[in-house]
Amino acid sequence: MNGALHGVKVLDLSRYIAGPYCGLLLADMGAEVIKVEKVGGEDGRSFPPLVKDDSLYSAALNRNKRAITLNFRHPRAHEVLDRLMKWADIVIENFRPGTMEKMGYGPDRLQEINPRLIMVRSSGFGQTGPKSHRPGFDQIGQAMGGIMSMTGTEETPPLMAGVPIVDYTSGLHAAVGALSALHHRNLTGKGQVVDVSLLESAVSMLVAQIPGYFLNEKLPERRGNCDRYSAPSNAYQAKDGWIFVVAASNDSLWSNLCKLMNRVDLLEAPHFKTTASRLENGTEIDRIVQEWISNYKVDELDAMFDRAGIPSGPIRNIPQILEDDHLRARGQIVEIEHPTAGKIPISGVTIKLSETPGAIRYGPPLVGQHTEEIYMDELGFSKQELSALQQEGVC
Amino acid sequence: MNGALHGVKVLDLSRYIAGPYCGLLLADMGAEVIKVEKVGGEDGRSFPPLVKDDSLYSAALNRNKRAITLNFRHPRAHEVLDRLMKWADIVIENFRPGTMEKMGYGPDRLQEINPRLIMVRSSGFGQTGPKSHRPGFDQIGQAMGGIMSMTGTEETPPLMAGVPIVDYTSGLHAAVGALSALHHRNLTGKGQVVDVSLLESAVSMLVAQIPGYFLNEKLPERRGNCDRYSAPSNAYQAKDGWIFVVAASNDSLWSNLCKLMNRVDLLEAPHFKTTASRLENGTEIDRIVQEWISNYKVDELDAMFDRAGIPSGPIRNIPQILEDDHLRARGQIVEIEHPTAGKIPISGVTIKLSETPGAIRYGPPLVGQHTEEIYMDELGFSKQELSALQQEGVC
Repeated sequence: MNGALHGVKVLDLSRYIAGPYCGLLLADMGAEVIKVEKVGGEDGRSFPPLVKDDSLYSAALNRNKRAITLNFRHPRAHEVLDRLMKWADIVIENFRPGTMEKMGYGPDRLQEINPRLIMVRSSGFGQTGPKSHRPGFDQIGQAMGGIMSMTGTEETPPLMAGVPIVDYTSGLHAAVGALSALHHRNLTGKGQVVDVSLLESAVSMLVAQIPGYFLNEKLPERRGNCDRYSAPSNAYQAKDGWIFVVAASNDSLWSNLCKLMNRVDLLEAPHFKTTASRLENGTEIDRIVQEWISNYKVDELDAMFDRAGIPSGPIRNIPQILEDDHLRARGQIVEIEHPTAGKIPISGVTIKLSETPGAIRYGPPLVGQHTEEIYMDELGFSKQELSALQQEGVC
Repeated sequence: MNGALHGVKVLDLSRYIAGPYCGLLLADMGAEVIKVEKVGGEDGRSFPPLVKDDSLYSAALNRNKRAITLNFRHPRAHEVLDRLMKWADIVIENFRPGTMEKMGYGPDRLQEINPRLIMVRSSGFGQTGPKSHRPGFDQIGQAMGGIMSMTGTEETPPLMAGVPIVDYTSGLHAAVGALSALHHRNLTGKGQVVDVSLLESAVSMLVAQIPGYFLNEKLPERRGNCDRYSAPSNAYQAKDGWIFVVAASNDSLWSNLCKLMNRVDLLEAPHFKTTASRLENGTEIDRIVQEWISNYKVDELDAMFDRAGIPSGPIRNIPQILEDDHLRARGQIVEIEHPTAGKIPISGVTIKLSETPGAIRYGPPLVGQHTEEIYMDELGFSKQELSALQQEGVC
């Protein structure tokens, strides 16, 4: 079955995570995505985890894409890029701002080549503004975007999240921008530039904190796993692991928790009566809950909380996630065939559509695996022209 | 100027963060979004930070939306909901799975009312599978989705990120799904269901970790701010604060850093020669870099790293972000007029489009602020019919 974006043509010139992840989202939804790498393969092909010199990181980000090579710096690269830009509905790039312009493919030139083209630009700090020249990485987005200042505990330094959350949100914002621009393009025939950045993707997650600080002039603390606004909501240590419990958002959850702990006396305690007083006395509540929880195993607690309708969840590691029958049933953990590693599990299509479901149609491509079919079938080069380009090192 | 999604009609029935954030993204891009709240306002209207009993959290998530009230449980609510469902291109809901069905608005019934309608369902665990009944919160997504197991240090428990990253990514996935389905709908006339979840949004960020564990059977450690694959990449303590430095991804960055520290001797050290050996001896490198950094202030370091082309960034808190001229120039920090608080700063439109830029067209709505205009102008109720509905407590 065709995906929702069947027929949409995407040219993915990007490297690292944010750009390729945008391309992946569109590919999962059915778009036809061509990934362009330099001859020999992009740097990401050597990023760990590696299996027989092949990067699984690159593999996981590039399933559902076809891969061609092109030496961007070759004087004849323009002959190929011009055709690719005419072919595409959407081009994704995450070079440093100014690089596409230097290559001769700034927005004005792209507009001449293909007025319907949507140019998605992902960068560390955006295409404009006094910091636009600075190099960006996920960690720098988390640092400068305020997230680290709120992550960790009173005893720790500011900490980063253990996965590159800013790379992913930036790729997601890029995809929302690309599809919004596509909607407009389909109605008007006019392409445009989508400009997203790591820094701004981080700042976009400060929805409550920015006005909150402005009003109170109080810095958001590093509260570990403790909720900022209600209690009890925290991670507690069971006999054999950790469990997160959120029994805070209203009085009835608090009441359910007290009953489960066989401590209905707490419901009468005046200093635990309201949301505000429970927050104020959160440390005492946490001590009581922790003491009770330490008598049980995670699985026992998980079943008890589930029956009692109290939001909770075990803190799981990767093997526990790989074994989850729910994630398997949902198709969120799937196996793909990797050219050298054989069958490997990866995170599947996250967005589930009922009528045009996304699917993993292609496994991860080898370097240049589709150069011949794309140069000839999509771009119209003859066998001889392609051979000449290859001999000259263009692709 | 009209936004890219001008003319797209969105009905936002959702509460908390993930659903409203999806609606916000579409509203920022120009869609016409109607937010429906129970009579008296949704629970989120009381979530901190508060100003004169008004939630800025709710305000920041609902700018660009018009707000009406509707008592979903009233027997006459159907008369209004039927018209709203006919009016909409996209409906967003994040009730517990099964709730819309109980209300009489499951996918089959919506298909009858409006075959072009796209139903966006955001939940803790998805609409199907053995865990679909469980309640979800951001923290539970971070816990069960594996992110917490990798966040923190060897000394800390598993930690959550200090902002609700899973709520935001889930809202973003919902928006990508909605717009993919809209593209398909525009071509075929057929709506469908988009099903996203907090748990799966968390798991979607384990791109490298899932296949990595499968191959090595090594649990990803909690490494604090230390990169998993290269060194030096860490947060270092300057005289007056913290700075993040990423000088690890290739030999030339390492060389630039050694020159900047006036330590070209390190370039000759055999145990620092390659990416692999620098990772192996990361602790020693971190000690050297930390010692040098502690002689300077964050601003001095920031300027030096910028000149040397070494990716880095100060770890900033909210007031530092509010003062950033770059974020102001980019329109990522903007002021809105709040009905009771006056001018307050919020995070602006994150996705920058060149031809149809997003904009903050409406400030945050009061409860039911647009009930009259929407019930009458958009849904076709007469003044008398509206009065009758209000008298009966329907809205």
